[in-house]
Amino acid sequence: MRNWTLPEYIEDVLPAEAARIELLRRRLLDLFQVHGYQYVIPPLLEYLESLITGVGHDLDLATFKVVDQLTGRLMGVRADTTPQAARIDAHMLNNQGVSRLCYAGSVLRTNPDGLAQTREPLQIGAELFGHASVESDIEIQRLMIKALQAAGVESLHIDFSHVGIFRHLVRESNIRPSLEQALYGALQSKDQSAVSDLAIGLDKATRDALCVLTELNGGSEILEDAQKYLPSTKPITQALSDLRQVSEKLADMNANVSFDLAELRGYHYHSGMVFAAYAQGYTGPLALGGRYDEVGSVFGRARPATGFSLDLRGIVIALPLAELPKGIFAPYEMDVALANKIEALRAEGHVVVQELPGHEAHRSELNCDRKLVKKDQQWQVVAAPELVS
Amino acid sequence: MRNWTLPEYIEDVLPAEAARIELLRRRLLDLFQVHGYQYVIPPLLEYLESLITGVGHDLDLATFKVVDQLTGRLMGVRADTTPQAARIDAHMLNNQGVSRLCYAGSVLRTNPDGLAQTREPLQIGAELFGHASVESDIEIQRLMIKALQAAGVESLHIDFSHVGIFRHLVRESNIRPSLEQALYGALQSKDQSAVSDLAIGLDKATRDALCVLTELNGGSEILEDAQKYLPSTKPITQALSDLRQVSEKLADMNANVSFDLAELRGYHYHSGMVFAAYAQGYTGPLALGGRYDEVGSVFGRARPATGFSLDLRGIVIALPLAELPKGIFAPYEMDVALANKIEALRAEGHVVVQELPGHEAHRSELNCDRKLVKKDQQWQVVAAPELVS
Repeated sequence: MRNWTLPEYIEDVLPAEAARIELLRRRLLDLFQVHGYQYVIPPLLEYLESLITGVGHDLDLATFKVVDQLTGRLMGVRADTTPQAARIDAHMLNNQGVSRLCYAGSVLRTNPDGLAQTREPLQIGAELFGHASVESDIEIQRLMIKALQAAGVESLHIDFSHVGIFRHLVRESNIRPSLEQALYGALQSKDQSAVSDLAIGLDKATRDALCVLTELNGGSEILEDAQKYLPSTKPITQALSDLRQVSEKLADMNANVSFDLAELRGYHYHSGMVFAAYAQGYTGPLALGGRYDEVGSVFGRARPATGFSLDLRGIVIALPLAELPKGIFAPYEMDVALANKIEALRAEGHVVVQELPGHEAHRSELNCDRKLVKKDQQWQVVAAPELVS
Repeated sequence: MRNWTLPEYIEDVLPAEAARIELLRRRLLDLFQVHGYQYVIPPLLEYLESLITGVGHDLDLATFKVVDQLTGRLMGVRADTTPQAARIDAHMLNNQGVSRLCYAGSVLRTNPDGLAQTREPLQIGAELFGHASVESDIEIQRLMIKALQAAGVESLHIDFSHVGIFRHLVRESNIRPSLEQALYGALQSKDQSAVSDLAIGLDKATRDALCVLTELNGGSEILEDAQKYLPSTKPITQALSDLRQVSEKLADMNANVSFDLAELRGYHYHSGMVFAAYAQGYTGPLALGGRYDEVGSVFGRARPATGFSLDLRGIVIALPLAELPKGIFAPYEMDVALANKIEALRAEGHVVVQELPGHEAHRSELNCDRKLVKKDQQWQVVAAPELVS
């Protein structure tokens, strides 16, 4: 077994791609900052209960566990930063009104996640706590779209759903958990006949509603159909009204909007509107988000919450491919004037690579296309085509 | 057990400190870049053999282990990024001449590390591969000093040693590993009588040399004493000559330089000159570095290597305390002119926080000191002392 092979779905990021990721990381964190989102750095490691309580079995399976040698308790390496942000909002900041937080950092997953095919997404995201109505969902959605556009992603398509509709139907009909789980699976795969079979013991209105959900996908016109075919209860009417607002309030964002009311992504985690961003040339969703008002309750302080996150490594391909900036080659000479010139160039942001003695044969590896030469008693930058390999 | 408590020596970084850490992170990565160091992002997770082979038992104990569910093999979460950089140099870049790499990211340790009192240092560092002589050590040391000074650290003190001296004495006298280990411990604690007792079976010259090592600490004058009292073999003479060069070549750096030849920090890992940076007001070393020519050999391609790293969280206190930038408050109104004004201000780098309906009572939590108001048909920024809590 070779010592330099990496585990599957784990990768090094080498200089050219790392530079693009760093550029994008800064651009997005700066974008979040001017929108009032404050950067926090939650730890990689927490007690397992803090990382996964209340957010479903999937996250438990995805989390690497280690034993705390100081206490013997089980800890986990975070597989998702969102619950950590909820914990920080609930207990560290203690705002009564709105908190806006953002973060950027690696998370680890025991298995490669869906289409992304990595076990170490570089997760960056923004979360808004303390506001329960659709205006904050829209603020988060607009920020997500701006972030993707700032990353260079074109032809954006945002798909919306609202897990509150299915949740409401389940609660109203006292559907037992095992049937709820089965219906969830059938809805996710839009298998109307399976839904119909599973719902056979339920009242006709609920059964019809569940069946019609599998057909309610398309443009904003399906929201009218939904109003017509789904029960006109307050929660469902509110959910549909919120979705209509989204459709209007994102109209200026140059992104395609669609709805799929059978989509229940993150059902165990989210409580309201959920959304996913897609674009041409990408196989999976580029960013995911939604409302998750219940997550904070495990930290003793349930606060309304909505947010989104994305994997920087997944979207970096939208940035134009760029070579690393070429540097200026400086000879190895003990000359104060040379040293001063080098420092002045670096202070202006130029990359200056000084030779190390004995490496004259390998100058072409230094990624330089100019060099410092002494002319008329002055160190000057001149072109150096001989350095370009 | 409360779900929001963190494990010992694990901490959240909240907005005010996170902003300073991010500022420093960018400043140092930019500094490394203009010196020709290319940013890489090694993974958090690797097979255990890659992370710890050949770099000593300490790193093994410090590394959290997890099982790879895809292969059943043991993996580790990195406790140090340096061996990863060596692996990337050896196998991913494959340069024949010099490679310069830098990195920034969290590492995890099973126990809090020395005085830093954290299990999650935010390690940032620079490594130079492919050059075996003292000029590259000096390049790295100058870069370390510049990085610490860029971070605002004053009254720097750099302590140097050279593990090659002890290593040479051990090899020449065929000292067995258990005695080597005991002598290492006695030297580290500068216990001359213990060294003398342990060395009683060795030839007189070696015993004298080992004993005198415990006294060889101070300014550059101790290098003259060392030349006098240590055997004049080629490796020792070279080591002392290299240390003298350091003393000269760092003279312009506004940092105090001292030597301690009994200091063997990182002995199992380093092969040549080692150094540590200290400053007033800090209890432990701020940055550590040295030469480690052997580490790459476990990846099948031994390359000369020298580098340094530091914990961003440990040095951030040197940056002047700064509050988060105050924002501009914008009302929640559907007005295209307002929306345009907000976007223009954000594009200039201003933080603009738009109100969400229903949160009028909590405006003072938004960290704003100005607001947008409509005057003479135009949206204008005016002072808003009433928003400052």
